Amino acid sequence: MTYPLRTIQEDGDAVVILDQTRLPRETAFVVLRGLADAAHAIRSMQVRGAPLIGATAAYGVALAIGGRPGFSDADLDQALSVLAATRPTAINLHWALSRMRRVLQKSAPATRRDAAWNEARTIAREDEAANAAIGRHGLPLLQAIAARKGQVNVMTHCNAGWLATVAHGTALAPIYAAQDAGLDVHVWVSETRPRNQGLLTAWELFQAGVPHTLVADNAAGLLLMQGKVDCVIVGADRIAADGDVANKVGTYLKALAARAHGVPFYVAAPVSTIDFACLDGAHIPIEERAAAELGAGDTVVANPAFDITPASLVSGIITEHGIIAPSNLGSIKP
Amino acid sequence: MTYPLRTIQEDGDAVVILDQTRLPRETAFVVLRGLADAAHAIRSMQVRGAPLIGATAAYGVALAIGGRPGFSDADLDQALSVLAATRPTAINLHWALSRMRRVLQKSAPATRRDAAWNEARTIAREDEAANAAIGRHGLPLLQAIAARKGQVNVMTHCNAGWLATVAHGTALAPIYAAQDAGLDVHVWVSETRPRNQGLLTAWELFQAGVPHTLVADNAAGLLLMQGKVDCVIVGADRIAADGDVANKVGTYLKALAARAHGVPFYVAAPVSTIDFACLDGAHIPIEERAAAELGAGDTVVANPAFDITPASLVSGIITEHGIIAPSNLGSIKP
Repeated sequence: MTYPLRTIQEDGDAVVILDQTRLPRETAFVVLRGLADAAHAIRSMQVRGAPLIGATAAYGVALAIGGRPGFSDADLDQALSVLAATRPTAINLHWALSRMRRVLQKSAPATRRDAAWNEARTIAREDEAANAAIGRHGLPLLQAIAARKGQVNVMTHCNAGWLATVAHGTALAPIYAAQDAGLDVHVWVSETRPRNQGLLTAWELFQAGVPHTLVADNAAGLLLMQGKVDCVIVGADRIAADGDVANKVGTYLKALAARAHGVPFYVAAPVSTIDFACLDGAHIPIEERAAAELGAGDTVVANPAFDITPASLVSGIITEHGIIAPSNLGSIKP
Repeated sequence: MTYPLRTIQEDGDAVVILDQTRLPRETAFVVLRGLADAAHAIRSMQVRGAPLIGATAAYGVALAIGGRPGFSDADLDQALSVLAATRPTAINLHWALSRMRRVLQKSAPATRRDAAWNEARTIAREDEAANAAIGRHGLPLLQAIAARKGQVNVMTHCNAGWLATVAHGTALAPIYAAQDAGLDVHVWVSETRPRNQGLLTAWELFQAGVPHTLVADNAAGLLLMQGKVDCVIVGADRIAADGDVANKVGTYLKALAARAHGVPFYVAAPVSTIDFACLDGAHIPIEERAAAELGAGDTVVANPAFDITPASLVSGIITEHGIIAPSNLGSIKP
């Protein structure tokens, strides 16, 4: 599978991102030239998706250094804390910042600029490779369904495609791998209110020629009841050590409905999404976003951006190391 | 509780309805002068909600007769079939048309006009009385919660308030009764994509001074997991003889989440919503509505308007005769 655009790429001393708040209406890029640009891009969801947030944050540290040869420890702390405060739920953000901190603390101030760009580039390349591996590990799940019944109907939620990552996607990686392998795969795409990231998924799948059908989030239960879904694959913003999964709000409802109808429910995520220091889902902070996202004027609104799917509802976590039972995450702890 | 407007009322030889496609942005009325107007009002969802669809269909028969003194059996059949074809799921439509047929078949053509207006008026008045009774029967459920913990947090879906009926509402009737009784009640209102009838509910509750919070449909699972919901009350478009419930798409997901967290899930509906001839939920036709409702341009869309909640997930059905177990509907078969 080749992807028509890059979500994030270097351009000299700057970083160019695809502005996802303008998709699918228009394809526009934004040039990030400093720390504030990177923080704004994450906060405003110009970039989104846990792995891409991580990569953007890493590049944000490199941008914070800019042309300053004497980037001190205090400067580093300041940059890391600005970036860490952008969004609370996706753990890849903190994972990427921790990596940047480790590398830069070992570097002399004069070499920090090069070290930062190198490490950000490494994080981006590793994400690309991890997601390609997720696609390879997820493919046999879809091949098994295809062997049994021909067409494979996958349901997903939100956007966990190449737009949410540096490349390939997480939840969509096995679907793209299935398309490449010639499987007859069709995807149920849920709108994903309030920000409608399902439209991003529909756009991605359209670009890739993967048959898909958009539905209101509310339709997931009926589709599962009617036997129109063979498996659910979603991404994740943070996975607790016990296998509980924080992902875009509405994921949990799909997991409940999948379980009610004996349909497997998979989470696709690189190991960087697992927060081994987080005991369980109750300890994952849930971002509350602006009321305006619901577009309901003066109405009082609650707008949690994520929910928690208990490990007990998760059939497996598709990682770059293979499919892991949510109860067995300790086995891949780095 | 007094309601600021009437959803449907007679005006000489015409019927005036509140145009719900323009709420809550503007308050506008539409005058129905004949059969085509009534059919259009139902099909286009200017009127919506199973009980109000029933009343509008009944008045539609009266409007079909209009000034024609010789309204034949063939004319009657024609009018009934036009109205019956407007929307497939709400059984109240067919129930009201059956009543009209029964009464008019017993009337001589010359007296059919008066008989039709009388029967439509009776259906409307009975709906109002039934919903008031639903409010009375549902109130003790909320009083018990209030006695235990003070504030009562009810979750609902779609709009099953006075806008969906001739008066009082079904799911909202106990909430209005609770407000009248001085209970501290707060309502979680789900947006109800794709047509956003949650905004109608928020508007109703605002008019009535009932505290409420709008959420994306996707948030229901998290709110239940967080213990922020004491009970769920929804309306119904058709209830099968075995207690399976067809209601606005997304209802089933709320029922699953309520069960997962031990929160009672009630359906409020007049007996006219029960289809005793329908064996179970699998036999209820699910209306597929236009792709354009999702507003996603050329994307391929599926847009089922209802889903089925199995009787096993329903704690009770709040009817005008009291709260009935879904397994015991035979006890109130007319």
